[in-house]
Amino acid sequence: MGLDPDPKRIPDSVLPDLPVADRIVAFNKAIISATADLACAYKLNLAFYELHGAAGWEALRQTREELPEHVVAIADAKRGDIGNTARFYAETFYGELSFDACTVSPYMGLDSVAPFAAFPGRCTFVLCRTSNATADDFQLVGTPEPLYIQLARRANDWNDQLTGSVGLVVGATRVDDLAAVRAVSPRLPFLVPGVGAQGGDPKSTVAAAHTETGPILVNSSRSILYAASGPNFVEAAREEAHRLALALAVR
Amino acid sequence: MGLDPDPKRIPDSVLPDLPVADRIVAFNKAIISATADLACAYKLNLAFYELHGAAGWEALRQTREELPEHVVAIADAKRGDIGNTARFYAETFYGELSFDACTVSPYMGLDSVAPFAAFPGRCTFVLCRTSNATADDFQLVGTPEPLYIQLARRANDWNDQLTGSVGLVVGATRVDDLAAVRAVSPRLPFLVPGVGAQGGDPKSTVAAAHTETGPILVNSSRSILYAASGPNFVEAAREEAHRLALALAVR
Repeated sequence: MGLDPDPKRIPDSVLPDLPVADRIVAFNKAIISATADLACAYKLNLAFYELHGAAGWEALRQTREELPEHVVAIADAKRGDIGNTARFYAETFYGELSFDACTVSPYMGLDSVAPFAAFPGRCTFVLCRTSNATADDFQLVGTPEPLYIQLARRANDWNDQLTGSVGLVVGATRVDDLAAVRAVSPRLPFLVPGVGAQGGDPKSTVAAAHTETGPILVNSSRSILYAASGPNFVEAAREEAHRLALALAVR
Repeated sequence: MGLDPDPKRIPDSVLPDLPVADRIVAFNKAIISATADLACAYKLNLAFYELHGAAGWEALRQTREELPEHVVAIADAKRGDIGNTARFYAETFYGELSFDACTVSPYMGLDSVAPFAAFPGRCTFVLCRTSNATADDFQLVGTPEPLYIQLARRANDWNDQLTGSVGLVVGATRVDDLAAVRAVSPRLPFLVPGVGAQGGDPKSTVAAAHTETGPILVNSSRSILYAASGPNFVEAAREEAHRLALALAVR
């Protein structure tokens, strides 16, 4: 479940007179308490917090602390840097903020992944096949196999060689590609966005990506967070989360 | 000139009794005032600020405000996301923090670049050919031309089509590749890291990348910032910046 609080879409009933960072924390707390028994993980996209500067980072930290112990806390940061810079990013998300998982961008290769995957007990999800319109710009480069398949193969080695776990971000909107990635990386955890507002189908996503050895985390953000805009938003979010949880429980 | 303040390397003489974020701002101010007439741009790598949470973001904002008007202020953020998320990142760096330029990661294609390049008068530098050891993991995928050349060609179109300017990040450590990128993108601004601590040669960098129509910004961070660790660090940084500025003035 994605905690991507867009100030323009936070219901008016949530602390309308307080600063935006406080409204974000209150909104997130309400959503978390309404869905904590339905979600196995929460994913916080950093962009929604950074926009509010220092107060936004404080809201990020407070939201992280609200997450119950039994869920996987994911920082959707898509950082991708090298050397001491990548180490500082990893220390930020795994050390300072105690996230269990983080997304990274692979353009610079293993150097961007290794400092994250040096942390034991964490899962570092590498962008592989994304759900957006222009994903083909570069992810299809390469023969005989496209970049995203070559990356998925490489991620297996990284997962074997590095201390922490390595997973893949694979969008739900291209279900054939999802199956192709699963075929070459049968054991890696997948983080699968694109179900919900982006239109991916829960049943075909599970059929394409879930195996006994390869767990998947299917993410939905907007369709749950903004299921209703009135004071009933908490109940509406819970209902939508429940509907999605049932739709995913197909096996 | 890169403002990448590593707390372990900030000289002991800089406000030793204050919190780390205050020390960072004081260090940056000292470096900026010692080098402002020698540098055409300052590049702030976000990792060095994020590590310190809300206080770090406040240090980022304060450092941004210290930059004189005549220099280009670059947020080295390497963000790469899509849709409203990418728009929020662009708003953070170009709107809230008023940076003149920002680095982005291209794995998800144009969707990650367009929200940044929607800002007029800014330059969005896309990672193209990087200077790190594992850059070849994915940047060489593709035939007959490798990914980084295909990306450089595509960036020309983006620069023509989008409101803001599009530039490329091309490392100085592979001078032949730098020349190859310049050959296919003669007009794009280049941001060139890798001179200094990473070993790139100033003269061959300028020879390979600078043209009358294609400006370059050559970055150095550590070799200037940490030229000395004692109380003479300001003078040492100025001396090193001056040495590099002369080495780059080869045309």
